[in-house]
Amino acid sequence: MKIAILTIGNELMSGRTADTNSSFIAREANLQGWQVEAMLSVGDDFAAIKSRLDYLLPLADVIICTGGLGPTTDDITTEAIARAFGRSLFTDEKSLNYIKDLFARRNFAWVENNTKQAIFPEGAEIIPNTMGTAPGFALKVNAKWIFVIPGVPRESQIMFPRGVIPILQREFPEKEQFIAKQTIKTFGLGESAVDKALSDVDFNALGVNIGFYPIFPENHIVLVSRKKTAEEAQEKLKLAANEVTTRLGKYIFAYGEETLEAIAGKLLKEKKLTIAVAESCTGGLITSRLTDVPGSSEYLERAAVTYSNAAKVSLLGVPAGIIEKHGAVSEETARLMAEGVRKMAGTNLGLSSTGIAGPDGGSAEKPVGTVYLAVSDGKETICRRYVYKWDRKRNKLIFSQAALLLLKNYLEGKR
Amino acid sequence: MKIAILTIGNELMSGRTADTNSSFIAREANLQGWQVEAMLSVGDDFAAIKSRLDYLLPLADVIICTGGLGPTTDDITTEAIARAFGRSLFTDEKSLNYIKDLFARRNFAWVENNTKQAIFPEGAEIIPNTMGTAPGFALKVNAKWIFVIPGVPRESQIMFPRGVIPILQREFPEKEQFIAKQTIKTFGLGESAVDKALSDVDFNALGVNIGFYPIFPENHIVLVSRKKTAEEAQEKLKLAANEVTTRLGKYIFAYGEETLEAIAGKLLKEKKLTIAVAESCTGGLITSRLTDVPGSSEYLERAAVTYSNAAKVSLLGVPAGIIEKHGAVSEETARLMAEGVRKMAGTNLGLSSTGIAGPDGGSAEKPVGTVYLAVSDGKETICRRYVYKWDRKRNKLIFSQAALLLLKNYLEGKR
Repeated sequence: MKIAILTIGNELMSGRTADTNSSFIAREANLQGWQVEAMLSVGDDFAAIKSRLDYLLPLADVIICTGGLGPTTDDITTEAIARAFGRSLFTDEKSLNYIKDLFARRNFAWVENNTKQAIFPEGAEIIPNTMGTAPGFALKVNAKWIFVIPGVPRESQIMFPRGVIPILQREFPEKEQFIAKQTIKTFGLGESAVDKALSDVDFNALGVNIGFYPIFPENHIVLVSRKKTAEEAQEKLKLAANEVTTRLGKYIFAYGEETLEAIAGKLLKEKKLTIAVAESCTGGLITSRLTDVPGSSEYLERAAVTYSNAAKVSLLGVPAGIIEKHGAVSEETARLMAEGVRKMAGTNLGLSSTGIAGPDGGSAEKPVGTVYLAVSDGKETICRRYVYKWDRKRNKLIFSQAALLLLKNYLEGKR
Repeated sequence: MKIAILTIGNELMSGRTADTNSSFIAREANLQGWQVEAMLSVGDDFAAIKSRLDYLLPLADVIICTGGLGPTTDDITTEAIARAFGRSLFTDEKSLNYIKDLFARRNFAWVENNTKQAIFPEGAEIIPNTMGTAPGFALKVNAKWIFVIPGVPRESQIMFPRGVIPILQREFPEKEQFIAKQTIKTFGLGESAVDKALSDVDFNALGVNIGFYPIFPENHIVLVSRKKTAEEAQEKLKLAANEVTTRLGKYIFAYGEETLEAIAGKLLKEKKLTIAVAESCTGGLITSRLTDVPGSSEYLERAAVTYSNAAKVSLLGVPAGIIEKHGAVSEETARLMAEGVRKMAGTNLGLSSTGIAGPDGGSAEKPVGTVYLAVSDGKETICRRYVYKWDRKRNKLIFSQAALLLLKNYLEGKR
């Protein structure tokens, strides 16, 4: 089955927004064994949308459109699709009530132009949107299927797998309909290095599709096995996953969809351990990630962002002499920060970061991107030094990633 | 002048690589006053490339192609272009010497298939590549221009402005070539409400283009004015910006590209004030955003993420009786947190957050999404209560936004 992707929006044509939906949809489609024939972007313009649809229709069995479902006057996708295929429009009361309800729950004043998002072309099968106001829809036109979902990646990237793929599976049934899927998350290798490490594996021979998803600073690998029985699908998936593990084992931190912070949190909960965090260069980001996990107040007691040296001394009890002698960015300071916050908070564990996020402040010995991370349990303190080469915000993110990984490895008894 | 962009590569169609070239080229083209009519991606396939070119040619004056200039057998763009327009191929000795020289300087062994990168269609104007081995080229076909540059973003994103734009300026001189641009950032209104507030303004009559860009939890408005003189472009832009200000003034927090945290930081610096932060529900996110700004250590002294009540008591000096009586999520606690962290850190200001990010922990009186934010200067403490209705991560983000806005307003003397 062949797919074409049409992303719609003036913000794409002006370059203000980069289209991430096409690559997401292409990856997901490829994992299902469907071929993407063309990807096209077009502005919010009736004639242009019609012309692009006319061009794409003969090329593919299915056209996936994203964007232009907003409430504003420049959002014309639904009407453009209806006009292109000579369909009238109708208001779906169920969708309208859902949107009104969402506004009420969010304490937003109801604006009448939002009713627009409950209007669909005659014959449309409505695709719910659990992340926002605009539902999507599927429309059968002769033997072809047209899908329309929002352009907001947060919405489209949930609606495509949950709303579109099931309809496509129903309409284009495959003989091999049992699917087993495995996400493997890695950290510490670039995308091309991950690719190269796996280049000798013949995933085709196993009948397993592989997809690569770089989500800075992680690289996710997704394996999809499609077979005639659930058992066979699982079996081939396991073989493929084993090949990945053999080659990338030490870079893998998750088998599944869980985030690193959720995994660390689960381990803390299982082991009934509490933690406190002392952050310098990460500026609160480690703790913010830990608290992104619902229920994290069970194990996270407190954190101190000791940005100044005075705070490191007075709050964490790092001796001023140590900072003077070794520097605020040093193994000694990182160790004493982890130990100090643990004592101050009365927790089982202390976790710390001190480094240079940039753009300034580096030296030959400790260049921008240097970070010291430590975890302490009162008996033992483990410290790691890394040097990364990104900009300030990405350095902060990768520092926090390395800190959470240090914590996870500690909790799993890996030294 | 109208432009179409054709990105070429199997890695795009599999979703393995997200296309960032199209949005880059579109942005650069828009700034020149050129309109992007379509963006298309296609695999490394002779027939498909020919078909896409045939479709794009009537739509645009110029087609910019990226990708498929590598040395391997699947890189076929040059030959596909030559075939599509009936041109023979020739080897450019100057380019060949450049490539060989680059290999020698990089200590790479010369591989014979790299000669391919010095081959061009007859009549091509060669565009140098200072970042890699493959030069690009421009080809005039009747009244149209076809450009081909590499797909590697590091290379294409230098070659487009330096190599392609000068040729386009030479070939398509514009009358209205002066551009003025203004970004206006708002917070507190949904996209549709922003749109509605501006619906009575005739931006067309002013000759100013307007774009809406929702970047949660902010909504950005971009105005672009293109005129025959720089003065006129500025003047019309100012009129349009005034119309926006009249209607949305109280929701506007920035004129320009600066982030809210950078603006708050600049105000702190200007006023030579230091700050400490006490966070509960935001879990470090306010401080992480403040420290995203280079040089923030000048004003941010420290922060305490007091997730437990014990931490609020022992670190910030919030009396246990207050928490017991009013709750950890209360105006009283928020005020005492801001005052407490200010005293503890010895800073001019204290900023605090306490609330319920969700998904659990709400009550009828204080539902999930409730947040109390306070800023204190030792004389006065200002507290605000908001209720938001997002999921945990977005609640944290919007809480941090409201906190930074409270700080900015305080610093600007707005109560």
